[in-house]
Amino acid sequence: MAQKITPRDKDYSRWYTDIVLNAKLADYSPVKGCMIIRPNGYAIWEKMQAALDKMFKDTGHENAYFPIMIPESFMKKEAEHVEGFAPECAIVTIGGGKTLEERLYLRPTSETIIWSTYAKWIQSYRDLPILINQWANIIRWEMRTRLFLRTTEFLWQEGHTAHSNAAEAEEETMRMLDVYETFAEEFIALPVIKGKKTEAEKFAGAIYTVCIEAMMQDKKALQSGTSHYLGQNFAKAFDVNFLNSKGEREFAYASSWGVSTRLIGALIMAHSDDRGLVLPPKLAATKVVIVPIWKSDEEKATVLKYCEAITLSLKDKVIPFKLDDRDQFKPGYKFSDWEMQGIPVRIEVGPKDIAKNAVVLFRRDTMKKEFDIPVESVGEKVSELLDLIQKNLFDRALKFRKENTFEVDDYEKFKETVDGPGGFILSHWCGSPECETKIKKDTKATIRCIPFDEELRGSKGKCLVCDKESEGRVVFSKAY
Amino acid sequence: MAQKITPRDKDYSRWYTDIVLNAKLADYSPVKGCMIIRPNGYAIWEKMQAALDKMFKDTGHENAYFPIMIPESFMKKEAEHVEGFAPECAIVTIGGGKTLEERLYLRPTSETIIWSTYAKWIQSYRDLPILINQWANIIRWEMRTRLFLRTTEFLWQEGHTAHSNAAEAEEETMRMLDVYETFAEEFIALPVIKGKKTEAEKFAGAIYTVCIEAMMQDKKALQSGTSHYLGQNFAKAFDVNFLNSKGEREFAYASSWGVSTRLIGALIMAHSDDRGLVLPPKLAATKVVIVPIWKSDEEKATVLKYCEAITLSLKDKVIPFKLDDRDQFKPGYKFSDWEMQGIPVRIEVGPKDIAKNAVVLFRRDTMKKEFDIPVESVGEKVSELLDLIQKNLFDRALKFRKENTFEVDDYEKFKETVDGPGGFILSHWCGSPECETKIKKDTKATIRCIPFDEELRGSKGKCLVCDKESEGRVVFSKAY
Repeated sequence: MAQKITPRDKDYSRWYTDIVLNAKLADYSPVKGCMIIRPNGYAIWEKMQAALDKMFKDTGHENAYFPIMIPESFMKKEAEHVEGFAPECAIVTIGGGKTLEERLYLRPTSETIIWSTYAKWIQSYRDLPILINQWANIIRWEMRTRLFLRTTEFLWQEGHTAHSNAAEAEEETMRMLDVYETFAEEFIALPVIKGKKTEAEKFAGAIYTVCIEAMMQDKKALQSGTSHYLGQNFAKAFDVNFLNSKGEREFAYASSWGVSTRLIGALIMAHSDDRGLVLPPKLAATKVVIVPIWKSDEEKATVLKYCEAITLSLKDKVIPFKLDDRDQFKPGYKFSDWEMQGIPVRIEVGPKDIAKNAVVLFRRDTMKKEFDIPVESVGEKVSELLDLIQKNLFDRALKFRKENTFEVDDYEKFKETVDGPGGFILSHWCGSPECETKIKKDTKATIRCIPFDEELRGSKGKCLVCDKESEGRVVFSKAY
Repeated sequence: MAQKITPRDKDYSRWYTDIVLNAKLADYSPVKGCMIIRPNGYAIWEKMQAALDKMFKDTGHENAYFPIMIPESFMKKEAEHVEGFAPECAIVTIGGGKTLEERLYLRPTSETIIWSTYAKWIQSYRDLPILINQWANIIRWEMRTRLFLRTTEFLWQEGHTAHSNAAEAEEETMRMLDVYETFAEEFIALPVIKGKKTEAEKFAGAIYTVCIEAMMQDKKALQSGTSHYLGQNFAKAFDVNFLNSKGEREFAYASSWGVSTRLIGALIMAHSDDRGLVLPPKLAATKVVIVPIWKSDEEKATVLKYCEAITLSLKDKVIPFKLDDRDQFKPGYKFSDWEMQGIPVRIEVGPKDIAKNAVVLFRRDTMKKEFDIPVESVGEKVSELLDLIQKNLFDRALKFRKENTFEVDDYEKFKETVDGPGGFILSHWCGSPECETKIKKDTKATIRCIPFDEELRGSKGKCLVCDKESEGRVVFSKAY
C-alpha cells in the first residue's frame, strides 16, 4: 500500500492528497468543491468535537442551532461583513417549486442570523452574557479547493457571545483563543503561535481578530483557529440594545470564534510521513491494532487464543483497539494497511512471541519496534507508549518550527528566505497597509500574525520595506 | 410563569406552542418555516444523539458526512424518489456570484448523493456491507410548519447501508426499527407501535417502509421513526454493482433509516402538562435542581452551607444538578420556573429542614412532595426517584394509549370515533388503495401502520368500507 503515496520531497501537495484518499479520510464529491468525509476522517472530527465541546461547556457555553438559510437583507446590514462574505455565498432562489420573494444565502458564518435573534432575547443586563456555540455546516463558494483545507462546504463550530461591556467581550475573545491553543497543542500535538491579525487579514465585521498559526511540514503556515472581538458592530446593525445597570440603553458587545474540519488537514500535514497518516493518540478512535501472525490453522488457533490475554490487558486500561484477524491478508499487508491509517501502536504476536510469553510493540511515529514486552504488562506499557507518542509528535513539530523560523532584517534576504528555505520569518513592519501589500505582492508571503509572545516580538526596529520605526517583529510566511 | 401556558383542554395546539416557547426549547426564526433550537431544546437533542449514536455504533455503524448540495440530475435518477421529494426542495441557483450551470438541491434526504458515492466504493462482495450513518441538517419546503414537528429545516440522522443480498438488507431494516423502538421506549419513555406503512404512505423510492407510531395526549398519532428497505432501486439508479462470491455482477441491496428533532416534539406532547415541560430523566441534562429557602442573610449563609452536603451526595451518584441561589427571585417563582423547564426532581431546603437534618423532594411527573428525606441519603434517594419517574412516564403514556385504542368494525361507528373520542382505531382493511383513500377523505384518519403485534392485528375480518376479506386489523388515526 505504501507505494501509493507520493513522497513528500517529490510533491508535497500530491503527498497530502494521497494520504487523504488512501487513508480513506475523505473523498471527492460529485458537487464541485465539496468533499465527502469518510468514516476514518469523521472519527477524527468526532474526537475533536468531544474534546472541544467539553472545553466550551467547562467555560460556561451552551449549544444551540440557528437556520442555515439567511435572508439577503440580513447579510446586507453590516457593511464590511457583506462586502467580505456575499461574493462567496451560495444562494437559494427557489423553494417549494416557487421563486422566492427574498433570496436566501446559505450561511458563510452566522453572525447576522444570530444577532437578529439576540435582539429578541436581550432586554436587560440581566439577560447577559449569552454564551452560545453552534456545531454546523458552512458554505463558502471556493474557486480553488483542497480536501479539508478549503472546501465549498465544511463543518465547524462557531461561538457567538453577547456581553454587557467591552472588557468582558474582549476577555471572552482571548479566553477562547486560549482554549484553541490548548486544544491544538494538547490534542492535535500541534504547536501554535498566538497573535493578532492585521487590519487587512481580520474578519469582515470585526474590530480585531486574534488567531493561532501553525507550521506545516512544507514550512507553510496554516491558520488553525480565529477569535474575533466584534465590539458593537453587529449589535448596532441589528439594534441589539439593553438596559444597563444604570438604567441606560446601550448596545451589546460581541465576540465570535471558530475552528473547522480544516484542523484535520492541519493534523495530517503536521505529523504524517511517506508511509501514510500519523495520528496523535488522543485523537485516534482506535489507538492500537493487534496483528496476530500464523502460518497454519493450528498456529492461528493458538495465536488467537493468546490474543485474549492481550485484549483483556488493553480493556483493563480502557484502550480502544482492533484485532486484525482477517484471513485473506498476510501480516506484511496488514502492517502497511494500519500504518497508512495512522494507528499509533501496533502489537505483533506470533508463535515465537508466545514461546517467550511476550509481544512486539511497534510505534507509528518513529516506526520503531520494542521486543519482548511481557504479555501481562502490555496494557500498562501501551498506555505509557501512547503518552510518549503524543509528546513526541508535539516536540518534533515544535523543533521543526523552531528550526525553520528566522529573524530577517534585510528585504533582499527576506525575499531569498521566502523563495529558498521558506518557513516563518520574523521581521519588522511599520504597521502600514502599503508595506504589507507590497511584501505580499513581491513575495506571496503574508503577515500571519502580530505575535503575543514577547520573545518572538523582540525589541523595536525598522520596517523591512520603508525603514520607518516598528514596535516589534511580526510573523511572515506563505500560507494555506 | 405557569399562567403563561394555555391549558391542554382549552387549546391543545396553543398549549404545545406555549411550552416550546416558555420552556425556551425553540423560537421562531426570521426565515419562514425555520426554527431556532435554543440551548434547553438543543440539550435534549444532544442527549438523544448520544444515546442513539452509541446504539448505532454498538450495531456496527460508522459516521460519515456527505454534501448538503445535490446536483439536480442526481435527484432525477430514481423516478419515485424525485416525484416525492423534488416539489418540496430548496434550490441553489447562484454560487460565487454566478448562475450555476446545474442547479443544486439542498438535501431533503441523502439517498442520491450517497448512492452515487457508493458506486465508487463498492466493487466486490468483500466491500460489503457498508454501514454508514450521518448526523445532518435537512431542508424540506413545508407550507404549514410547527416548531419541532414540521419545519423547513430540521436536524436528523440518516443511516444508509449497502448489502450483498436482500435478506441481510431486510434484517438491517428491521434491526434499526428495533433500535428506534428501544430508544423511544427506554429514553423518551414513549410507548410505540411497530408496523409497516401502506404503499400510499411508504418512502418515495422504497420497496417498503416500517415505522414506529406513538400516541400524543390529544390522541393523535405521531410517526416517530422510519426504516426503509430500498431493495436494488438506488443501486440500479446509480449503477452500484459488485462482483458476488460466485463471480457474477449484481446490484447492491439497500436500507435507510432516520429519526429527527421531531422526537423532541413527541417528548413534549407525550408527557408535559399545564405547568410546562416534563422531561424523562434519561434525557434531562440537568436532572435535579436544588432550591434553597431563606429569609435573612444569616439564614442564607446557613442554608447554602447545608447545600454543600447535598451536592456532595449528588456528585457521589453522578447526578447532574443545578443549585438555584439567585438572589432576585423568591422560592415560589423558582419552583414555577423549574417546573416550566421540566426538571425531573427538585430539592427544597430551608431552616426547618436543616433542623431535622433533612430535605424535601419534589417530583415533576406527579407534582408530589416527599418530606423528611435524611440528607445523608439524598443522592441514593434521588437516584431511585429518577428511575421511578422514568418508569412512571412510560407506564402513564402506555395506559393512556390503551385507554384510547378501540376496535371498531362498523364504518359509521368508525366515523363517530374519529370525530368524537379520537385515538387509535383498530379496524379491518382489505388492502386496496381505494378504500384507504376513501377513509382518509371521509374522516382525515390515515392508516398509521399495519402492526406487527399479533394481538393488535387480531384475526381475519371484513374491510370497513368494501366488506371484502381482511387479513387483520390496521391502526387508523389522525396524525401529525
